[in-house]
Amino acid sequence: MTDIIRMSEIYAPTLKEDPADAEIASHRLLLRAGMIRKAASGIYTFLPLGLKVLAKIENIVREEMDATGAQEILMPALQPAELWFESGRWDDYGPELMRLHDRHARGFCLGPTHEELITALLRNELRSYKQLPISLYQIQVKFRDEIRPRFGLLRGREFIMKDAYSFHATQESLQKTYDEMGGAYGRMCDRMELDWRGVEADSGQIGGSTSREFMALADAGEAELVYCSCGYAANTEAGSGIATPTEATGAGAAGGAGGAAAGAGAAGAAWEKVATPGVSSIEALAQFLEIEEAATVKAMVGKGADGALVAFFLPGDHGLNLIKVDRIVPGFALLDNEEAAAAGLSLGFLGPVGLPAGIRRIAASDLAASARWVVGANEEGFHLIGARPGLDFEIDEWADILVVAPGDCCPVCGAPLEGARGIEVSQIFQLGEKYSKAMNATFSAEDGTDQHFVMGCYGVGVSRSMAAIVEQKNDAAGIVWPASVAPAQVCLLPLDIGDDAVVAAAWELATRIAALGFDVAVDDRDERAGVKFNDADLIGWPMQIIVGKRSLAQSEVELKIRSTGEKRSLALDEVVDTFLSLI
Amino acid sequence: MTDIIRMSEIYAPTLKEDPADAEIASHRLLLRAGMIRKAASGIYTFLPLGLKVLAKIENIVREEMDATGAQEILMPALQPAELWFESGRWDDYGPELMRLHDRHARGFCLGPTHEELITALLRNELRSYKQLPISLYQIQVKFRDEIRPRFGLLRGREFIMKDAYSFHATQESLQKTYDEMGGAYGRMCDRMELDWRGVEADSGQIGGSTSREFMALADAGEAELVYCSCGYAANTEAGSGIATPTEATGAGAAGGAGGAAAGAGAAGAAWEKVATPGVSSIEALAQFLEIEEAATVKAMVGKGADGALVAFFLPGDHGLNLIKVDRIVPGFALLDNEEAAAAGLSLGFLGPVGLPAGIRRIAASDLAASARWVVGANEEGFHLIGARPGLDFEIDEWADILVVAPGDCCPVCGAPLEGARGIEVSQIFQLGEKYSKAMNATFSAEDGTDQHFVMGCYGVGVSRSMAAIVEQKNDAAGIVWPASVAPAQVCLLPLDIGDDAVVAAAWELATRIAALGFDVAVDDRDERAGVKFNDADLIGWPMQIIVGKRSLAQSEVELKIRSTGEKRSLALDEVVDTFLSLI
Repeated sequence: MTDIIRMSEIYAPTLKEDPADAEIASHRLLLRAGMIRKAASGIYTFLPLGLKVLAKIENIVREEMDATGAQEILMPALQPAELWFESGRWDDYGPELMRLHDRHARGFCLGPTHEELITALLRNELRSYKQLPISLYQIQVKFRDEIRPRFGLLRGREFIMKDAYSFHATQESLQKTYDEMGGAYGRMCDRMELDWRGVEADSGQIGGSTSREFMALADAGEAELVYCSCGYAANTEAGSGIATPTEATGAGAAGGAGGAAAGAGAAGAAWEKVATPGVSSIEALAQFLEIEEAATVKAMVGKGADGALVAFFLPGDHGLNLIKVDRIVPGFALLDNEEAAAAGLSLGFLGPVGLPAGIRRIAASDLAASARWVVGANEEGFHLIGARPGLDFEIDEWADILVVAPGDCCPVCGAPLEGARGIEVSQIFQLGEKYSKAMNATFSAEDGTDQHFVMGCYGVGVSRSMAAIVEQKNDAAGIVWPASVAPAQVCLLPLDIGDDAVVAAAWELATRIAALGFDVAVDDRDERAGVKFNDADLIGWPMQIIVGKRSLAQSEVELKIRSTGEKRSLALDEVVDTFLSLI
Repeated sequence: MTDIIRMSEIYAPTLKEDPADAEIASHRLLLRAGMIRKAASGIYTFLPLGLKVLAKIENIVREEMDATGAQEILMPALQPAELWFESGRWDDYGPELMRLHDRHARGFCLGPTHEELITALLRNELRSYKQLPISLYQIQVKFRDEIRPRFGLLRGREFIMKDAYSFHATQESLQKTYDEMGGAYGRMCDRMELDWRGVEADSGQIGGSTSREFMALADAGEAELVYCSCGYAANTEAGSGIATPTEATGAGAAGGAGGAAAGAGAAGAAWEKVATPGVSSIEALAQFLEIEEAATVKAMVGKGADGALVAFFLPGDHGLNLIKVDRIVPGFALLDNEEAAAAGLSLGFLGPVGLPAGIRRIAASDLAASARWVVGANEEGFHLIGARPGLDFEIDEWADILVVAPGDCCPVCGAPLEGARGIEVSQIFQLGEKYSKAMNATFSAEDGTDQHFVMGCYGVGVSRSMAAIVEQKNDAAGIVWPASVAPAQVCLLPLDIGDDAVVAAAWELATRIAALGFDVAVDDRDERAGVKFNDADLIGWPMQIIVGKRSLAQSEVELKIRSTGEKRSLALDEVVDTFLSLI
């Protein structure tokens, strides 16, 4: 039996008004319900009720991790810079890594993640393939210096994460653990009652080849994702749908341009050159030619780390996926106006015909089926309609370079993809040998040779999950906690604190329910009924049991189900059974 | 029923050899038993078995805190510099405070303690005396940039603490909570089975008037304490015993000096001037004059923050307590050789007679009963024997300025004090209005006026407690955990892993004991019996149950009690009952 929460004593300062800087529901309601308070930008204190929720989420995570055979440890937050030099991330990680020096001027960072530390821990002691595989995890405070912390617990600078790391002798062994972790992560989301999708993801600053994110669907989410009824789902950063550009014939389009066309193609060329004065964006071009954006082809020129120029061509209604592009042209960055002018290029009027020689040309594979393109003429104020790849110009490579968008075809089944926004609550990664090679972490294999560990890593945003749950479970009155993570599953509301019978009945019910292993609160404050009702709805107890003087005289109380708002009058002797059947 | 620990799977790399840099038992044994690993100087990772111990200590602390009515919260580790400017500690705290800047160049520190943060949290929201008193606590990672981190978990730079803060309307209310916390702290120490003393303490960088430390007695401890059979106990930094200087008459001492005396007192003076060439330390002086150090009077000259010179006189066998001195002469620092020369003073030969005018003279009250002092002559190479306070020289003030030492008289009962060394595992403080005044944190009192909160704070070194327990509970073979904090209370040692009956019997016993609510380990590794015995002793399970082939054939197993080394042969059907009676 756990301790019963007394609302008269617990420090849970509820707020009547919405805090000024809280833009989204979870931020607003966690503040209003007295669960968190801001200590600094992106840095929060968990008050007693908030900490109870956090502890329940931690326990769900812990139980699911333990069930996979992972072992809990605790690594330090302070990490020596030398380890990050070894992995190369001291430079790569950028300004989000919080750095400091100790009194002896030695460099440290505050860990946003612990690949370096765990690799250093095991490389000295885990020597034999017989000890593999092994998974270790921790639940710990993490730090990331977000440039614009916002949305409360969703994008903070100090937050609680569960991070796990697995070490393997082979890729097959990693795949097995990776799949098991994926299962455990799904169960965690289910137990938190999240509406979630597991999506194909980019591995970002963590690295590795394969990654999967677990997204709580929510409009407040900062991630965009696409999904299909066949089961395919991806972060738009990482997904690879098939775009379906439309085609605009020269004649039709030129006609649509209201006589502004000034057809003057080169001898034998099928394209038509159109005067498009001041029309330098795709949106303006589509409007000017009265065609869809999908019927235009966008050209984007930049250079790689080696300084060589590269032009990318893509359907006008799609974005260039810089993560994918970086894998084709490492260090790729778009030209600015000055650089473009120096290279003799007219930004806003770029196209494949007449592009200076020596610029590598890479087009979206999605355009391969388009025989005639609407493109810039490489001349200020002009576009071409109906330029033909392979005839009027050449493309060097066709590649997957688009940000996938809703409406694209599913790469698995071909059906149109749906779009949604999501909150990344957790992510799993196949790191392979990225860290073990960089940090020279080896084991002795069965054949006696030294081999690098094959590694995986697995993160859960614990405090972020708390916010994600609230984003999905709230209404105008407040939070609607699922029973699995609520600070207590039920709150007793004795309405007349001066009436001994009311108080006694409330405590008797509270004690009986607590004895069954539930967490129980009693609003024993000397407050008006309205205040108690409002606070109970705001805090979001899954069930409320209201004990009033008049109904108690008839041996009745009222049970309110927070998620539906339904209220039932119940005889005193059936309350506990009804509670048990509903929770 | 908790999960049974399988030694074949858990990551607990035991070491046969003592690690080179581990000077004390707890550091050495926690490393050797595979419970912690160093990540950087003074920064450790807790491996699975170490984390289990840490979690048990945390739970003891949490239960005792909850029992006082304190509520658990979680504050951030990152604290904005502005709050520390408000309290004045940004400058006062010194280089042990780890400081950093975020990407926007705003200053932060990594919290070594949270008075500023909690005061800022409550000052905005806790408005009425009706909400007082309130106690909030957290169990959290803390940071302190020790200049010489050492002794493993005893003096680290990142460590786990429980810190609690209480807010009151009156000093009486604070005293009540302070006393309750003192009781809870004693129970925590008892539950960890520490041999401890609660001692009068200095409040150091935390501040406030009254403080009490809870010391685990151990030779490895860095604190010195004195205690008396009457119950009085104090950190020597803070205690105030009564020193009993002896007296050496001029004649006797001069005679003892073997004719080296050169009596030449001023007219009418009873003292004798003795040539003491090169005798500039108390030790050398006592040896030279053949008297006890306690029979000499040490003079120490320095200046306060205001630059005025002050001379302190104290019994030669005692140290000057700079913490006490600082309260009398704020900013006091001893003169160096150059400063002394500039002031016309001969260091090593200082004394009250002939001291330049204008130097304030403060003597230890303990010397008030000494009518004749052996002191420096304020002349290189000479001392005076038998100088008389009030006659030959004047003293401006008598004060409590000594570091108390074993053998001094107890300030409560007068009996001689005993001395010991201890590890400060926890400490409680009456802060009074120190922070609420500096940070303007007020509440509305019953009479309607705004008043500053009266505060207390209460810390427990959680990871340090783990080391303190090991310092007290170890032997040549390893750690001897008390059952209350052991990673498991019992380990089953099936000696023949190839023998199905042995393995089955071990697991059957393990399962039965685990079902009773105990934590159980099974050493199911395919290792020799000697390896299992050594590791079990090293790790320190309170009980071992050894299941061997030969004894099992007679339906017997062996139970070993780690703390005594006693082994008992027991029939299979009496093992569990015997375990229960012993644990």
